[in-house]
Amino acid sequence: MPLTDALHWRYATKRMNGQKIPEQQLDRILEAVRLAPSSYGLQPYSVLVVKDQALRERIRSAAADQPQITECSYLLVFAAWSPLGEDHVDELIRRTADRRGLDPAELENYRNTINGAVRSYATSEQRFHWAAKQAYIALGTALVAAATERIDASPMEGFDAAELDALLQLDQRGLRSVVLLALGYRDTATDWLAPLKKVRWPREKLFIPLTEQDLTGGPVEEPAYAFKG
Amino acid sequence: MPLTDALHWRYATKRMNGQKIPEQQLDRILEAVRLAPSSYGLQPYSVLVVKDQALRERIRSAAADQPQITECSYLLVFAAWSPLGEDHVDELIRRTADRRGLDPAELENYRNTINGAVRSYATSEQRFHWAAKQAYIALGTALVAAATERIDASPMEGFDAAELDALLQLDQRGLRSVVLLALGYRDTATDWLAPLKKVRWPREKLFIPLTEQDLTGGPVEEPAYAFKG
Repeated sequence: MPLTDALHWRYATKRMNGQKIPEQQLDRILEAVRLAPSSYGLQPYSVLVVKDQALRERIRSAAADQPQITECSYLLVFAAWSPLGEDHVDELIRRTADRRGLDPAELENYRNTINGAVRSYATSEQRFHWAAKQAYIALGTALVAAATERIDASPMEGFDAAELDALLQLDQRGLRSVVLLALGYRDTATDWLAPLKKVRWPREKLFIPLTEQDLTGGPVEEPAYAFKG
Repeated sequence: MPLTDALHWRYATKRMNGQKIPEQQLDRILEAVRLAPSSYGLQPYSVLVVKDQALRERIRSAAADQPQITECSYLLVFAAWSPLGEDHVDELIRRTADRRGLDPAELENYRNTINGAVRSYATSEQRFHWAAKQAYIALGTALVAAATERIDASPMEGFDAAELDALLQLDQRGLRSVVLLALGYRDTATDWLAPLKKVRWPREKLFIPLTEQDLTGGPVEEPAYAFKG
């Protein structure tokens, strides 16, 4: 099945029917998350996997009472490492050395490079934004993976982060919540969004072919690609 | 081909061989980007598509001289709308009404909801971070789409954003650069990263099964899922 078919099929499911996802399919979605790219491969986030219904009831109350939080099968909470620091980088270096059969000392330059990148974000808030962006790559990967499995998904930013962090005791784990993802099955009988047409910007708006001549005021070339798809 | 196979195959390609991507494959990757989810479906970003070699030479000089910028087939520049404002929301409302056969006035509550969400980010910098995160969902989608096409890709944050924005005259377009993505083919003869094993956190570290009992200090349940994949 082409990926674009899966992306046409999916939508931000607002109501789910409570049916459980087969564990093998959850595993494949989580494995896609695990393999998601990130800057330096640091993956500076954790993903809380919540099946427990009682806990999802409490999360729902911190998230604008969105019903898919309790109607889904699993709720994923993407949470960025915060504060992000050199101990995290050290752990990546150890793991990289182990995986590639190296002495960690051989990766000293690499370690310094990553630490320099982390330090280039001067405040803890800037580091949090950077880590959160990496988590959004994983979120995008999870959304595509779920769609290819024909598992419905609902990404959610509409929650009180401070309240949710307190509820889940994320501070104790060195985490801050970033975004939620409910995984389950659409309830077409109750979901107002289910029958509505998908809205996306047309390609002419979203994509801008750009050449050097476009910047120098010279005659504009034909678009650098022929977008036929 | 399972999605995880594609994700194992891909890596952040550091050197490319200059070979051109078939346009149909580029089209499919761009169409996946176009279909990527975003908050409220606002897709608050544009994607500059740069094939022109002269321009890529200049971009490379603003991006730590990374060779894949000139060795790739197409360079995508994800750029967030900045400043982000109500006119963008109005345009989404018009398009949504058009696509769903509604009068825009029928979407007044929806418009207010989205504007409220945008306004909840008090500063233009906070709005930029929010828009950038949406672009990272599209980046994740592009990375997965490229991998399923067996097209190599190199996401890059290592560039001087102010210099790149000035070079590409993004301010005139109401844009700020967020992240780069080179699309092309790996040069296994020169890419030091090509033969190295992929490093990812083990699932036991990345995923945290969480129940209410975990938070109340009671006896901890078995993990809420059996992660077999």
